[in-house]
Amino acid sequence: MATEKCFSKGSAAPGPVLSGLRLYSMRFCPFAERTRLVLNFKGIKPEIININLKDKPEWFLEKNPLGLVPTLETSAGEVICESAITCDYLEDVYPEKKLLPSCALGKAKQKMMLENFSKIVPYFYKIAMGKKKGEDVSGPEAEMKEKFSKLNQDLVNKKTKFFGGDSITMIDFMMWPWFERLESFGLKTFVDGTPELKKWTELMLEDPAVKLTMHSVDTHKAFNKSFGEGKPDYDYGL
Amino acid sequence: MATEKCFSKGSAAPGPVLSGLRLYSMRFCPFAERTRLVLNFKGIKPEIININLKDKPEWFLEKNPLGLVPTLETSAGEVICESAITCDYLEDVYPEKKLLPSCALGKAKQKMMLENFSKIVPYFYKIAMGKKKGEDVSGPEAEMKEKFSKLNQDLVNKKTKFFGGDSITMIDFMMWPWFERLESFGLKTFVDGTPELKKWTELMLEDPAVKLTMHSVDTHKAFNKSFGEGKPDYDYGL
Repeated sequence: MATEKCFSKGSAAPGPVLSGLRLYSMRFCPFAERTRLVLNFKGIKPEIININLKDKPEWFLEKNPLGLVPTLETSAGEVICESAITCDYLEDVYPEKKLLPSCALGKAKQKMMLENFSKIVPYFYKIAMGKKKGEDVSGPEAEMKEKFSKLNQDLVNKKTKFFGGDSITMIDFMMWPWFERLESFGLKTFVDGTPELKKWTELMLEDPAVKLTMHSVDTHKAFNKSFGEGKPDYDYGL
Repeated sequence: MATEKCFSKGSAAPGPVLSGLRLYSMRFCPFAERTRLVLNFKGIKPEIININLKDKPEWFLEKNPLGLVPTLETSAGEVICESAITCDYLEDVYPEKKLLPSCALGKAKQKMMLENFSKIVPYFYKIAMGKKKGEDVSGPEAEMKEKFSKLNQDLVNKKTKFFGGDSITMIDFMMWPWFERLESFGLKTFVDGTPELKKWTELMLEDPAVKLTMHSVDTHKAFNKSFGEGKPDYDYGL
């Protein structure tokens, strides 16, 4: 998957999608990473166009007025956005390596786990940013620990390695980007009290799609630093 | 679909689900109405147990710790919650009368419309409650008018009667409960400037599933009044 420097305001619009599929992304966006994980898992190599999210190209806002990544664009000019929706779309269009169960109940359980995890996501930022500002984050920290403890208990109850069974399914990829960032967010110790969840993060790190998609802790730290200084370095490392 | 008085804290837990499917609901909850609309559209008649949401039965919180309706329970004791997830589950399990398109893009578009509508839902309450408290709601009112105008434009662009085509699909049922409440919320004039959207509400009122599921404006007003007084009359009209 080629990584290219980001397109900013004033840039020339890319031509039509000739490769079948284009992903508008940002290399450090955890939501866009969900889509990139699914693409890598399925072995799909779309054209990738990275967007400067602080200084968005006018032509990108025309395609997706919300201006968010990930956004998929098809050869027919159809635009699909919202990370979970793009991932479900890819699952439907490229069903060879399945990430979702075929039964109704299994699908519903995946969606309920995602809904639950969506309520955990804000805590990663609340704690990391609060700490940076020197605020008292003991409240959100206690809440996040409780939520991690419930995720851990979920794995214990299921007696499975991953959240959807003994192999990786969609929900694991939906959750992973924030766990990849635990250390760079200064939250690594949060999985110390949750051994099954910690083991899950270790197993995820061994997955080929995760390896292909992820950034190192140092790279995340460098990007986070630039972001915190108000000058996000979207092209860091290129 | 039988409507029964609600179960409150201290009530005896109902027995196992013998009928194949049970819905925990609340007669005036717009989210639970989504599930009831889908059930009525598909001609499915599950056992319905209404929950006192202000004074929840202990046994209900054991089944669903979030304590939210709608919640489905199967004969196998499986619990499915979150309105959109319950509706997708019903679509999968009872595929005879389809509410979702079979193509990946069509499904993605339904989900994107739902995601968009989810951002509109809070405005109904912000405006209705703000008005009740005598607050200045001109800001949210202007925003909601803009959002309605975009929904209207969507119908104009598509040249279809409903949001997913010329017949009712899932997204129409996902949106309907809040439009059913427009008048009881004092927001009826909001569709005056959006003729296609207004026509959609009129067409929705003719749908058999909507007719079977909905309450009259007077009934909504009576419930809203009891709710506003802090004593929601969940059994109003029974």
